Amino acid sequence: MDIQKLVAEIRRKKSFLCVGLDVDIDKIPKQLLVEDDPIFAFNKAIIDATQEYAVSFKPNIAFYEAYGLDGWKSLERTIAYVNEKYPEIFTIADAKRGDIGNTSTRYAEAFLRNLNFDSITVAPYMGKDSVEPFLEFTDKHTILLAYTSNKGADDFQNLKVDELPLHLKVIETSKSWRNSENLMYVVGATKAGALRAIREIIPNSFLLVPGVGAQGGSLKEVCENALTEDVGLLINSSRGIIYASQGADFAEAAQAEAKKLQQQMKAFL
Amino acid sequence: MDIQKLVAEIRRKKSFLCVGLDVDIDKIPKQLLVEDDPIFAFNKAIIDATQEYAVSFKPNIAFYEAYGLDGWKSLERTIAYVNEKYPEIFTIADAKRGDIGNTSTRYAEAFLRNLNFDSITVAPYMGKDSVEPFLEFTDKHTILLAYTSNKGADDFQNLKVDELPLHLKVIETSKSWRNSENLMYVVGATKAGALRAIREIIPNSFLLVPGVGAQGGSLKEVCENALTEDVGLLINSSRGIIYASQGADFAEAAQAEAKKLQQQMKAFL
Repeated sequence: MDIQKLVAEIRRKKSFLCVGLDVDIDKIPKQLLVEDDPIFAFNKAIIDATQEYAVSFKPNIAFYEAYGLDGWKSLERTIAYVNEKYPEIFTIADAKRGDIGNTSTRYAEAFLRNLNFDSITVAPYMGKDSVEPFLEFTDKHTILLAYTSNKGADDFQNLKVDELPLHLKVIETSKSWRNSENLMYVVGATKAGALRAIREIIPNSFLLVPGVGAQGGSLKEVCENALTEDVGLLINSSRGIIYASQGADFAEAAQAEAKKLQQQMKAFL
Repeated sequence: MDIQKLVAEIRRKKSFLCVGLDVDIDKIPKQLLVEDDPIFAFNKAIIDATQEYAVSFKPNIAFYEAYGLDGWKSLERTIAYVNEKYPEIFTIADAKRGDIGNTSTRYAEAFLRNLNFDSITVAPYMGKDSVEPFLEFTDKHTILLAYTSNKGADDFQNLKVDELPLHLKVIETSKSWRNSENLMYVVGATKAGALRAIREIIPNSFLLVPGVGAQGGSLKEVCENALTEDVGLLINSSRGIIYASQGADFAEAAQAEAKKLQQQMKAFL
């Protein structure tokens, strides 16, 4: 998807919300367990209920792989459903892959071509030739981990290299990679204090921001430090939306939560 | 698998060879394409032909995900086959995963519990809480990327932090993580010059070493710098073995290549 289509969609919906589909079969309403494919049934209901307030859906691949073949089937159905019914929605394979060149090419084929996601999250540790195979897909986006929302992020991502914290070095270096205009970056809302320095290096790139809500990040702080003319932000919420209720009203509850976040976002646009 | 079982197997076979199962359907012998599951048929033939000379098999997960559901089926069959027929073989899911805690737990379940691999490769960028969920599986091993064999490795892994190259900092830091005694590390044969410094920090840990052969690394140099009393090395070869011939004699050719490497290894034991 072209970035301007995403921006237009953000303006139309007055939302830069990404809904994370981290589906745990132990947490979905019991009524769905009789379905052929309970995970897809859950996702479909969540997608239909929240798409009005969201511009992006992000299945976390680990949650599907944990169910083996059945999980892959649910993942295939989920992405196919979004692509067919809501082609204006920006889809993210939250896979955090990265390997030597010919192997990264295989991951890129799996997620960007075969499953046809608009983007994939990728880890930077292995460097340029581990990321460029994803960037070869020039109609897609590669979302590089920069400064993640978890506590362990500071173990390495904030260490000083050449006078810069590693995450800034990663971002700066990545700008020289082939097709780097198709890069986006993961920066946790819990690391909002780092956003101004990040925006100095990439004033316009889109950031995928997890960690608002359950993990304690603040939407306001993120917007104040990183909102751009073209918005430049996708704020992810997973558990706070999809498990807003575990009862029969789960879809309505998810919709209400998505709407609540959208209303907060609208105020910043 | 207990590490002493792996060491015993290395001594018995006089080999520390790991065969990488990076299966590309375009490169396997045409005769296999009529099979129900050509990738599994290929793997089975390669495994049977090389197991006498190898102590480990390492499917590279990207190559299976690239084929979607069919790929996952082939992967499931492959690991089940090795676990049943050659339980003394140390299996590695070369997945290079790593995510926030609850997500890493899902990846660990997928590969270490459900597929029942003995180990998995993991990326360190997200820090302690992204790796410890794998280490929770105390009868398994977590193989942390330290200094990889690819060219891009030097983009970040060799940058100086606190006077140390990042890869040494990663290794040093990882020693303080829970159940760190079950860590192994990936160090490319192309980075053999870094092995002495690595061995100063982890004198006994097992290293998984890719990059001998096609990528230009030297077995001799690796052994001279990193062999331990308990051997402490698994040397991986993928393409050099599994595609030694693309004709009807592919299994015999793979066996001959594996044997050649085993003979070279034997000289160092």
